[in-house]
Amino acid sequence: MLIVHNIRLSRILRNTWQVDLIMIVSCTGAYLTRAFLIKHHFEIPAIIPAVLGTAIAFFIGFNNNQAYDRWWEARKIWGALVNDSRSWARSVITYISQNEISDEEFKTLKNRMVRRHIGFLYALKAKLRGAVDENYQQYMEEADLKEINQHSNVHNAILTLQSRELQQLNKDGMIDGFRFIELNHLLIRFSDEMGKAERIKNTVFPTTYNYFTKVFIWLFIVSLTLVVSHEAGLWSIFIGWLVGFVFVSTQINGMSLIDPFENNSSSVPLNQITRTIEINLLEMIGAEKIPAPVKPINDEYIL
Amino acid sequence: MLIVHNIRLSRILRNTWQVDLIMIVSCTGAYLTRAFLIKHHFEIPAIIPAVLGTAIAFFIGFNNNQAYDRWWEARKIWGALVNDSRSWARSVITYISQNEISDEEFKTLKNRMVRRHIGFLYALKAKLRGAVDENYQQYMEEADLKEINQHSNVHNAILTLQSRELQQLNKDGMIDGFRFIELNHLLIRFSDEMGKAERIKNTVFPTTYNYFTKVFIWLFIVSLTLVVSHEAGLWSIFIGWLVGFVFVSTQINGMSLIDPFENNSSSVPLNQITRTIEINLLEMIGAEKIPAPVKPINDEYIL
Amino acid sequence: MLIVHNIRLSRILRNTWQVDLIMIVSCTGAYLTRAFLIKHHFEIPAIIPAVLGTAIAFFIGFNNNQAYDRWWEARKIWGALVNDSRSWARSVITYISQNEISDEEFKTLKNRMVRRHIGFLYALKAKLRGAVDENYQQYMEEADLKEINQHSNVHNAILTLQSRELQQLNKDGMIDGFRFIELNHLLIRFSDEMGKAERIKNTVFPTTYNYFTKVFIWLFIVSLTLVVSHEAGLWSIFIGWLVGFVFVSTQINGMSLIDPFENNSSSVPLNQITRTIEINLLEMIGAEKIPAPVKPINDEYIL
Amino acid sequence: MLIVHNIRLSRILRNTWQVDLIMIVSCTGAYLTRAFLIKHHFEIPAIIPAVLGTAIAFFIGFNNNQAYDRWWEARKIWGALVNDSRSWARSVITYISQNEISDEEFKTLKNRMVRRHIGFLYALKAKLRGAVDENYQQYMEEADLKEINQHSNVHNAILTLQSRELQQLNKDGMIDGFRFIELNHLLIRFSDEMGKAERIKNTVFPTTYNYFTKVFIWLFIVSLTLVVSHEAGLWSIFIGWLVGFVFVSTQINGMSLIDPFENNSSSVPLNQITRTIEINLLEMIGAEKIPAPVKPINDEYIL
Amino acid sequence: MLIVHNIRLSRILRNTWQVDLIMIVSCTGAYLTRAFLIKHHFEIPAIIPAVLGTAIAFFIGFNNNQAYDRWWEARKIWGALVNDSRSWARSVITYISQNEISDEEFKTLKNRMVRRHIGFLYALKAKLRGAVDENYQQYMEEADLKEINQHSNVHNAILTLQSRELQQLNKDGMIDGFRFIELNHLLIRFSDEMGKAERIKNTVFPTTYNYFTKVFIWLFIVSLTLVVSHEAGLWSIFIGWLVGFVFVSTQINGMSLIDPFENNSSSVPLNQITRTIEINLLEMIGAEKIPAPVKPINDEYIL
Repeated sequence: MLIVHNIRLSRILRNTWQVDLIMIVSCTGAYLTRAFLIKHHFEIPAIIPAVLGTAIAFFIGFNNNQAYDRWWEARKIWGALVNDSRSWARSVITYISQNEISDEEFKTLKNRMVRRHIGFLYALKAKLRGAVDENYQQYMEEADLKEINQHSNVHNAILTLQSRELQQLNKDGMIDGFRFIELNHLLIRFSDEMGKAERIKNTVFPTTYNYFTKVFIWLFIVSLTLVVSHEAGLWSIFIGWLVGFVFVSTQINGMSLIDPFENNSSSVPLNQITRTIEINLLEMIGAEKIPAPVKPINDEYIL
Repeated sequence: MLIVHNIRLSRILRNTWQVDLIMIVSCTGAYLTRAFLIKHHFEIPAIIPAVLGTAIAFFIGFNNNQAYDRWWEARKIWGALVNDSRSWARSVITYISQNEISDEEFKTLKNRMVRRHIGFLYALKAKLRGAVDENYQQYMEEADLKEINQHSNVHNAILTLQSRELQQLNKDGMIDGFRFIELNHLLIRFSDEMGKAERIKNTVFPTTYNYFTKVFIWLFIVSLTLVVSHEAGLWSIFIGWLVGFVFVSTQINGMSLIDPFENNSSSVPLNQITRTIEINLLEMIGAEKIPAPVKPINDEYIL
Repeated sequence: MLIVHNIRLSRILRNTWQVDLIMIVSCTGAYLTRAFLIKHHFEIPAIIPAVLGTAIAFFIGFNNNQAYDRWWEARKIWGALVNDSRSWARSVITYISQNEISDEEFKTLKNRMVRRHIGFLYALKAKLRGAVDENYQQYMEEADLKEINQHSNVHNAILTLQSRELQQLNKDGMIDGFRFIELNHLLIRFSDEMGKAERIKNTVFPTTYNYFTKVFIWLFIVSLTLVVSHEAGLWSIFIGWLVGFVFVSTQINGMSLIDPFENNSSSVPLNQITRTIEINLLEMIGAEKIPAPVKPINDEYIL
Repeated sequence: MLIVHNIRLSRILRNTWQVDLIMIVSCTGAYLTRAFLIKHHFEIPAIIPAVLGTAIAFFIGFNNNQAYDRWWEARKIWGALVNDSRSWARSVITYISQNEISDEEFKTLKNRMVRRHIGFLYALKAKLRGAVDENYQQYMEEADLKEINQHSNVHNAILTLQSRELQQLNKDGMIDGFRFIELNHLLIRFSDEMGKAERIKNTVFPTTYNYFTKVFIWLFIVSLTLVVSHEAGLWSIFIGWLVGFVFVSTQINGMSLIDPFENNSSSVPLNQITRTIEINLLEMIGAEKIPAPVKPINDEYIL
Repeated sequence: MLIVHNIRLSRILRNTWQVDLIMIVSCTGAYLTRAFLIKHHFEIPAIIPAVLGTAIAFFIGFNNNQAYDRWWEARKIWGALVNDSRSWARSVITYISQNEISDEEFKTLKNRMVRRHIGFLYALKAKLRGAVDENYQQYMEEADLKEINQHSNVHNAILTLQSRELQQLNKDGMIDGFRFIELNHLLIRFSDEMGKAERIKNTVFPTTYNYFTKVFIWLFIVSLTLVVSHEAGLWSIFIGWLVGFVFVSTQINGMSLIDPFENNSSSVPLNQITRTIEINLLEMIGAEKIPAPVKPINDEYIL
């Protein structure tokens, strides 16, 4: 997530230099084609770039809408995980009855269920980011880790562990049916949110939209250069690139949001949010070592 | 679901050659009509394609929005099935009490309820894809299959079986009222998701939108050719087709998403997702034979 | 719901001939006005139809969006009724305990509750379609019908009957509190869905939108004809009508979806969907006489 | 809610005459300014109204979308109140056990809880309409009214009364925990819906949107008149007004929906809907005096 | 939240003077550049501002849509807090049984749970507004404040206190399982709403959209001035600024809604809404000192 208000020229150039080059070459080509081939035969009618421009503005708008929706939905999903994680910790801490076990055992039990949940979050984050994250292991007990290793879907396996412990707690009379149902609802919500995040991660935005939009923009600036070169001569190359830049950079901006769980500067800041939950939950169980919040990189963005 | 970033020219041509041909013939016709009939009488005013172009861009935008929404809703529905399927397996595995039955019987019971659910998914998938799928039979017991065969709606019948077994478990004291309600909620959610998928499958997107949009694009390129041929001569045929291609291919892209459960390259990848749930669930019950994930076809798309 | 891919010219003409006539008369009037009154004084500036065209395309787009949303919401509501109806039948069949009543009585009881629900659906459909439907009576017992006749809102009265029977079942110990709550939730959902359908049925889409859009299109084609007649002479009448047709037919298409429960070819196919539920439910209770699915009319549409 | 299909000219003029006057004066001013001041110096370029026209069409579209959404959300909220009100009456009538109280007392009890709910609806309606409504008092008992008078938020106070009676019923063993929870859920839903309605009522649509749109339309028609007067002379005043009317009336139509609980002809027909619930509920408790449905005013609209 | 219908010129100038200055300087620069450098070489083609204008109108529309959605979502979240707060107070007041504690203790208990909730709202508001709010302390008991001070997330800590008290009430038999579940659901909803508000507060709207839109508007007015100065001479500077103002002010209006929890005149009026809940809740527990509603500032806006 970018946190600056102005974008450095260097960042813009880094993101668009390839496209800029293609556009400049294409506009130059169009200029030369017109100068040497078309000029003496006919004029390219101005209605072509006019009609294409309007149509493409629509299509770019469509792409940006869908991209933004994916990004915002991703943010909502991870936000829901924040809320439900707090509810989980709160419920675990206050709703389990101590019964006959010792204070020490009781505290260990609660800590285990809350820390295991932090492990769940880190495991899910690692999967979504496509990264190896050993972070989650420090929050899991030895026995848990062993069992989980047999599963390809680590985060799902952790939920099963929670569910089994819940069942045991109910059997031991430490939570009654009403509390059991409340905690189980939270597990179902974690399952939902995890699945929703995977859905966005695994669903490729229809390739055709991005591909064709790029082709159409290219057609548009070529036809624009052809039309404009009549009046503006060599400047038409600059004009073609400039107008093309408006369209292309908007399209690129949109596409940078399309995969909101990637590890880049415009993605949902999973590191930061997960750390926030981690801090909240550790404070709630009165942990001693509490990590610091995630810091922005270059004062420019947060991962 | 397409997984490549660039689309092969061959695929584009395969999808649009008929329309391309119609457009080229129409533009040629328009060119000739103007050259021999209209030219000496009057000029077609440029405002006609200009106004039509803007209007049609709107209508194509509308179609694409609705198509994308259907596709994304379909994806969400099948994603919800993933989440609830995991919750179902997790609940079946951890929340049923063994009571007085043997270990073997207990394991069989759990396996049956999880495997039957995999059968439900395959039956539903077969119905949505309009294909015959014998896959689901391997996950059902003999007795179940017999009973199901009397029903025209196979997947609904499977849910009734699950429901009956749940009732029996509760009567036998293997799950209490709270757990009964939790598992029943999942059955209701399966019923919802199955119905939602059928809704999208069975509801024809209003024919008028696609039909009229195609007619209007045709009108647009004919009028464009008429206008442009004044200046561009024979090239107007090429220009008419090129601009028409921008509109037509966007419309076709949209329409390829309109029936998201079809068995084609831009549909929701039901095979892949169902297989993912299958693997997850089989791992959860510790099955021995676990199938491999679905592979992309031609490294181009996943079904 | 239209099920054909191409629309017959006859259908188009039947839907638009009045508007076509008005347009042709207006364009002719505009042509004549210009030819005899305006021509020698000044030219109508082309910017007028250009600006109006863009604006009207927006407004038509707005109308179509809202119309489609109403239609799709209506379809979703009736789809939710499908899902919940199946859940109702499934729950009635599997969750009621026989206790001390005879097999025969037990079967009658279940059949009554499922058949009464089919009656509810037919009564609701009749109300939405504004038609008299005696179909629902065959699914209700004599006593029920008598009681219902005292109510102006038949479908609501049927829900009260279901609710009362549910209460009785719980008192007789045939369902416990947990099952009672599940079945009651379904009744609340039926109440919701019935109310949502009535909301769409009873809420007139703001008249002003349709009315003004038609007036604006008329202004647009008149001004277009005035502008075009300068160059195109008599053909301007044809051009005015043709461009007008693009706008008008899109508006009419949208408006044909605005009241999705009407009894016409583009409405939600209530007959077909209700019949589908009917078949599903009758199969579930093992009924003997099961009606055939609803057939398309003229292979063109389904009601 | 307007129920006619065509809008009387008188209504249009009544709604727009002030704006029409301003537009005509402005266009005349623009015409004169050009004729005497600008004409001999330069021509206003046509691109200005062209660009402004497109931009303003967007902004008007935005305003209309938001206005319609507020209106439709308001309608949905009040529709949900219909559904939940019926569920409330149904539950009160069938789920309370008579136990040891007399038939008469039992009937009075049920009637009180249903009638008090009708009172709740009328009190809420009065608040939303900003009107004094004594209607609700006839549905409340003396003691209730006394207590309510101490609260500034009447409808909220009524919910507290319902809640207290519910608690008492449960204590007296007339409803069990399961039914208690069901009825309480309905109270929570009423609380939600009441709060949602108040949210729409109390949130001013950002003033800036309406204000600036009006300023921009004014700029647009002035520039349009300036441009058009070159060719069209005095007629440019008429043209300026006519095109302005298309934009202004669309903006005004939108704004008439922005406060959907006001007491005017395009608002949500609260009187009618509340009366419908009233009739339904009174029929359900077998009341003797049942009021007639609300009638349209002038056959034109329903309040 | 602005509550006036017309906006003072002073407010507009205060919000836009910097941008106005930049625009006037840029347009003057463009005019001079053309007059001394470009004029004799070529004309800037009018198609450039025409195409840019349409495209930018789209992008501004996109920004406004997203900004308005954030603002409206924020309003909905805080509205849901209103509804659930009332439900909380209502439930606390009517659903707790007195059992064996004294009247005084009972009243203190209820007051504590309701007042603590008001504290929760003020703490959350302070966090969202980024302000120090000591208001919440007056609603918390000494012991509570001590405990809360150890947590970085004050509002979350308050929810844990509520949750602990709830657990105690259930252990003491003052609420049963059913009521426990109802009150706990409300705590989960508070957790959700608090998390949703934090999500909007902490998520920066993608910087790129606002930044590039401003750059594009600048490009647009420069090119417009260049084109217009051919005909309009010095007036082109005024025209460039005027058209630029239409675009810029719309963009600025949108952006003023993008962070709806800020402490400015177009934000969600948290002070007012929180005070409304406060008054409602204090009335419900029969408090003696009830604060007055929040008053508008300058009769212009409410914070």
